[in-house]
Amino acid sequence: MLKLFEYNWQVRNEWLELCETVSMEELMKKRTGGLGYILPTLYHFVAVEYGWICGGIQQKAIRIPSFEDVMGVRQIRDFSASCHAELAPFVREWHEGLEDLVMIDITDEGVEEAHKYGEVMRHVIAHEIHHIGQLSVWSREIGLKPVSANLIGRGLFPI
Amino acid sequence: MLKLFEYNWQVRNEWLELCETVSMEELMKKRTGGLGYILPTLYHFVAVEYGWICGGIQQKAIRIPSFEDVMGVRQIRDFSASCHAELAPFVREWHEGLEDLVMIDITDEGVEEAHKYGEVMRHVIAHEIHHIGQLSVWSREIGLKPVSANLIGRGLFPI
Repeated sequence: MLKLFEYNWQVRNEWLELCETVSMEELMKKRTGGLGYILPTLYHFVAVEYGWICGGIQQKAIRIPSFEDVMGVRQIRDFSASCHAELAPFVREWHEGLEDLVMIDITDEGVEEAHKYGEVMRHVIAHEIHHIGQLSVWSREIGLKPVSANLIGRGLFPI
Repeated sequence: MLKLFEYNWQVRNEWLELCETVSMEELMKKRTGGLGYILPTLYHFVAVEYGWICGGIQQKAIRIPSFEDVMGVRQIRDFSASCHAELAPFVREWHEGLEDLVMIDITDEGVEEAHKYGEVMRHVIAHEIHHIGQLSVWSREIGLKPVSANLIGRGLFPI
């Protein structure tokens, strides 16, 4: 579990670094698919990971800034760093005994939904990778080489 | 590990089903980013998963058809089904004792590279999700609603 989070955190940081070289006009240009914009996508998967893990599973009282409050790459880097600091200990201490514990989510429509911790954790992993796939297409539209999506070769599994 | 593979297999099948409704012209139209075409992308992640798991980790003598040999959604569905039948037992029987075993890959440049099984398995998972993210953008270009990328709510973790 931890390795896939570490992969996402690495890739995310490389995207944030890359996007510091991109103009705000391109970051906020309407594009096809997904959330439709690069910058809100970066914000979105940081917020979603934090929301599910600290708010959902850990049931902490969290406060997620609105997109307008962190509407810049530097601000989203800071937001990502503070979320990471808060949620990484839980991910690092993950063990099989947590797999089948159940959390209750309240959807936007006010409906209660029960999810196993293991499902939530994998949802968060897949969610970020999926959105990064969308960024990889959009970055080519602006002539920018995307961050490598290879998990192999990132030093996550030293031999 | 298995759950993320099951997620990918579900999502892949839904994409293959959806793409049966798409014309060959759209499936083979040049697009921005990734491999640049929808149909070769579907072929690609099926072949990559099969290649790494049956060829790489299991060191079986495998034969991967060329794209030209399976150049249609129906053919790629069949290809996917036969790869799945061959590799799924290994994924289902995955256990922690396999994590640190090492396989030797020979790259396209003829260089030997050692990888832990655990790294290869996670690489395969992330690889498919990433390409599906690209498909989700391209499908919108042709006015097609993409397959849901949500892992939550797919019945993978019954309570």
